[in-house]
Amino acid sequence: MIVKAANQNRQDNYKLLIGSVVPRPIAWVSTRSTDGRLNLAPFSFFQAVCPEPPTVIISVGRRADGEWKDTALNALATGELVVNLVNVEVGEAMNVSSGSYPFGVSEFELAGVTPATSAVVKVPRVAEAPIAFECHLGQTITLGPGDGDHLLVLAEVVAFYVRDDLYHNGRIDPARLQPLGRLAGNQYSMPGEIFEMIRPE
Amino acid sequence: MIVKAANQNRQDNYKLLIGSVVPRPIAWVSTRSTDGRLNLAPFSFFQAVCPEPPTVIISVGRRADGEWKDTALNALATGELVVNLVNVEVGEAMNVSSGSYPFGVSEFELAGVTPATSAVVKVPRVAEAPIAFECHLGQTITLGPGDGDHLLVLAEVVAFYVRDDLYHNGRIDPARLQPLGRLAGNQYSMPGEIFEMIRPE
Repeated sequence: MIVKAANQNRQDNYKLLIGSVVPRPIAWVSTRSTDGRLNLAPFSFFQAVCPEPPTVIISVGRRADGEWKDTALNALATGELVVNLVNVEVGEAMNVSSGSYPFGVSEFELAGVTPATSAVVKVPRVAEAPIAFECHLGQTITLGPGDGDHLLVLAEVVAFYVRDDLYHNGRIDPARLQPLGRLAGNQYSMPGEIFEMIRPE
Repeated sequence: MIVKAANQNRQDNYKLLIGSVVPRPIAWVSTRSTDGRLNLAPFSFFQAVCPEPPTVIISVGRRADGEWKDTALNALATGELVVNLVNVEVGEAMNVSSGSYPFGVSEFELAGVTPATSAVVKVPRVAEAPIAFECHLGQTITLGPGDGDHLLVLAEVVAFYVRDDLYHNGRIDPARLQPLGRLAGNQYSMPGEIFEMIRPE
């Protein structure tokens, strides 16, 4: 085994984390600035953390200029975000939205996807996404030295959207959903073969 | 689209979260009680959240009797845990360790895996796991009503282990790693085909 101390540089630690913690689900997050401009960006430091209240975390980094990414700024300013889930059908659009564009550029337009009005929050979801969570911002926790390296955002789901054909008896059909997995660098994984292991009693 | 309000019951929300936030990476967490008994259990509410310091989160639920699971109790008592990563080779052993066994039963023995001495912490890693992170316990955050539904555990990586053949020029080879993905219920996904999408400038 190769052993690496974690007191090495940030980029080395980053590569080890994103290469090891795989496959990662992808949150394609829509937010709205206080003056109504829409933002849409993907994050793979994303996970479910609690069913009651239904809560997810997203960890957001900084832009090249050192400010938090627009997703974090907008969520902090409005208290609202929508987490859209990413499958093979919206993979390319998600990737288009991952570029660094000036504040106020709508990644909805660039990616060719449709803002659909939400039921509870003022932030639209992506109409083409197979699943979406309308969320209220919960706690935020600054991680890292100084003013922080990443902002850990807790988001409480206030409404779930699931495409009709994916939903059967309270369950979501993973074979139809076809989720993408995030790996390191420019790499993603297609849905793998599904199998079962029964948990011991 | 089917819309579900999030004010429904806990089990319904749980099914929607675990069916939507997929594929999830798996943390196979080893801990040690203050009197030296080893515990090993898998968690898929697991994610990387920060490279500096290298930090992961694991969200731990309660046992049937209402107490936090042993992983959380041991980490809280000792301040230490090891996150072992799960690939196809250790999938069955991981599943054996997922049963509910009495406190003090060693899932290392039940699962037929080998405790390997760690460099920094007193908790052993799983020798057969392709990657492992030695961790110090960071912040913990109680989520949910009353005494809490889940405990969100932040863990700082103090040493990384990577199997030699997986590591090339600072990067981990995902095709060799063959990570498993966690889905809902008893379902898992095999590694899917790897492809690239170049991020726009």
